[in-house]
Amino acid sequence: MFENAQRTEISSLGEFGLIDHLTKNFSLKNNTDKGVGDDAAVITPTEGTKTVVSTDLLVEGVHFDLSYFPMKHLGYKAVVVNLSDIFAMNAKPKQITVSLALSSRFSLEAIEELYQGISLACERYQVDLIGGDTSTSKQGLMISVTAIGEVLEKDIAYRSGAKANELLVVSGDLGGAYCGYQLLEREKRVFLDNPQAQPDLGGYDYIIERQLKPEARKDIIDILNTLDIHPTSMIDVSDGLASECFHLAKASDLGVTLYEEKIPIDPSTYNFARELDLDPTMCALSGGEDYELLFTIKQEDFQKLEHHPDFSIIGFMNEKNEGMHMMSKGGNKHPLQAQGWKAF
Amino acid sequence: MFENAQRTEISSLGEFGLIDHLTKNFSLKNNTDKGVGDDAAVITPTEGTKTVVSTDLLVEGVHFDLSYFPMKHLGYKAVVVNLSDIFAMNAKPKQITVSLALSSRFSLEAIEELYQGISLACERYQVDLIGGDTSTSKQGLMISVTAIGEVLEKDIAYRSGAKANELLVVSGDLGGAYCGYQLLEREKRVFLDNPQAQPDLGGYDYIIERQLKPEARKDIIDILNTLDIHPTSMIDVSDGLASECFHLAKASDLGVTLYEEKIPIDPSTYNFARELDLDPTMCALSGGEDYELLFTIKQEDFQKLEHHPDFSIIGFMNEKNEGMHMMSKGGNKHPLQAQGWKAF
Repeated sequence: MFENAQRTEISSLGEFGLIDHLTKNFSLKNNTDKGVGDDAAVITPTEGTKTVVSTDLLVEGVHFDLSYFPMKHLGYKAVVVNLSDIFAMNAKPKQITVSLALSSRFSLEAIEELYQGISLACERYQVDLIGGDTSTSKQGLMISVTAIGEVLEKDIAYRSGAKANELLVVSGDLGGAYCGYQLLEREKRVFLDNPQAQPDLGGYDYIIERQLKPEARKDIIDILNTLDIHPTSMIDVSDGLASECFHLAKASDLGVTLYEEKIPIDPSTYNFARELDLDPTMCALSGGEDYELLFTIKQEDFQKLEHHPDFSIIGFMNEKNEGMHMMSKGGNKHPLQAQGWKAF
Repeated sequence: MFENAQRTEISSLGEFGLIDHLTKNFSLKNNTDKGVGDDAAVITPTEGTKTVVSTDLLVEGVHFDLSYFPMKHLGYKAVVVNLSDIFAMNAKPKQITVSLALSSRFSLEAIEELYQGISLACERYQVDLIGGDTSTSKQGLMISVTAIGEVLEKDIAYRSGAKANELLVVSGDLGGAYCGYQLLEREKRVFLDNPQAQPDLGGYDYIIERQLKPEARKDIIDILNTLDIHPTSMIDVSDGLASECFHLAKASDLGVTLYEEKIPIDPSTYNFARELDLDPTMCALSGGEDYELLFTIKQEDFQKLEHHPDFSIIGFMNEKNEGMHMMSKGGNKHPLQAQGWKAF
């Protein structure tokens, strides 16, 4: 698992030295006048656009386990989960700030790897790192990322814009990140029981990558734009499909009907879930961390997406008094249950 | 010291319930289209302005000690220190995001008090709370705040704009927050030795308030505007006067000369420092957390500020090769030393 060959104490640089050192190779690609290095960053907003802002906190032992999460992947994921929120507004991310609290257990080399992941995400998604703060913590690592994006007013997709009878669509496939997490946890237990054991991850690259190196669906925003589809409401799948359905329905004052057979699940997710006696549908409904986009479209846009490989039409919005349901593969109607948030 | 009469577990609300509960009474005062409650907040930037962004992290046991820091004050201070960075760009803060990581030791009532302080700061400084994230932590409390502001391009004050022979000016007085910290630490030790002892804070209200309830100098930005003074460079005093002088000098590629006798120190700061055998000048130079504004002005603006009670002209910028010095009260020239950052 994760180890560093070399160890430089962070105290050897001091705070200002550390920030300079970590951020010196970040270039500015967007409308950023001033990034790291003053009291605040300075941005020129593009005329006629709205600014969108999202923030997320990742806490060691709560959101990630460094015994199998490489620092570079963690840095990448910390950025991606925030960008996903920006895309979920149908907006384009432009800038991020990154703040770290870290205990003395972390070496400079470890933090450099974290920043390599942050840098990779900034390159891949063409966003600028514009600021941050670093501090010690008494215990563990904490990462706080704020993302800033832009969108034309006419393109914004709130959670609240859905209407009854509109179609519910999701990108990609679901449940994979959760199964990847289960697999990594299983191999960690094996390793702890027998440190000589080699991890048995063969054949499950996809679900591991879904957990350790998720991508935000920038491409979906572009495809929808190309197809001239404006999502009437949108959210990203961070807590699980069921929870996101509840958010869209609540914000739009509606109910929802899901079709179990339409929920997209990758074969390797399905097979691994079965191996662990988990219900693949439950992994999709309650697993979370897939960072796919869930959105509603007008019925007239149906044909534009019907056969598109990146999308699945999984249900429709109904009136609030008709409630929240899933039609099972067996043809039964089940009330949909939003898995509560588990971190408290 | 700080205790709660009632205790409600945060787990009884869940994450979404907690955010709803804490943020429901926050009103939007600025150009915020959508605050808390979607994937991202939405802001309409004012045409022709630049957006400025700053972020800060406060960690329990590193930046604050809850044995004498009331939660309400902590919430207030967490916001104020960020707004101070926005003012230091000569900008006006408009929005903030607040993320919290908290251990199970914190009750809902404690977090409500924290949010009362956040709310008070939002009211006082007319900023909108537009988002955030909450999570558990393994240990302690961590607060990450990002502030967003606006400024006309012509008004921005970077650290890098100073020229040789320009005057160095500071608002208010310095060293008080550090002395307040020393006083609170002293009384904590007394209390730990003898829990029946009453804290002896009499006569030192000012320095305690400087530590526990600092204000960001919004008024200074307004005064400078009224006096038609454009600071050529500016920074806020968070790490101590010496460190901030180094930042301005480095960014502007200059040196600096300070006059010890001109450094503004409040009598209660002076008296308390003397009581503890501390050098009051050192408290100002290296104490930090005063959140005053340090800036440079052109010589021709000298008379506008010469007798103004809110400002002290404490020195001037010189060429880089002339170095960084302080002229002591005794008339000696001392090299200025930037106290390193102490948290690592």
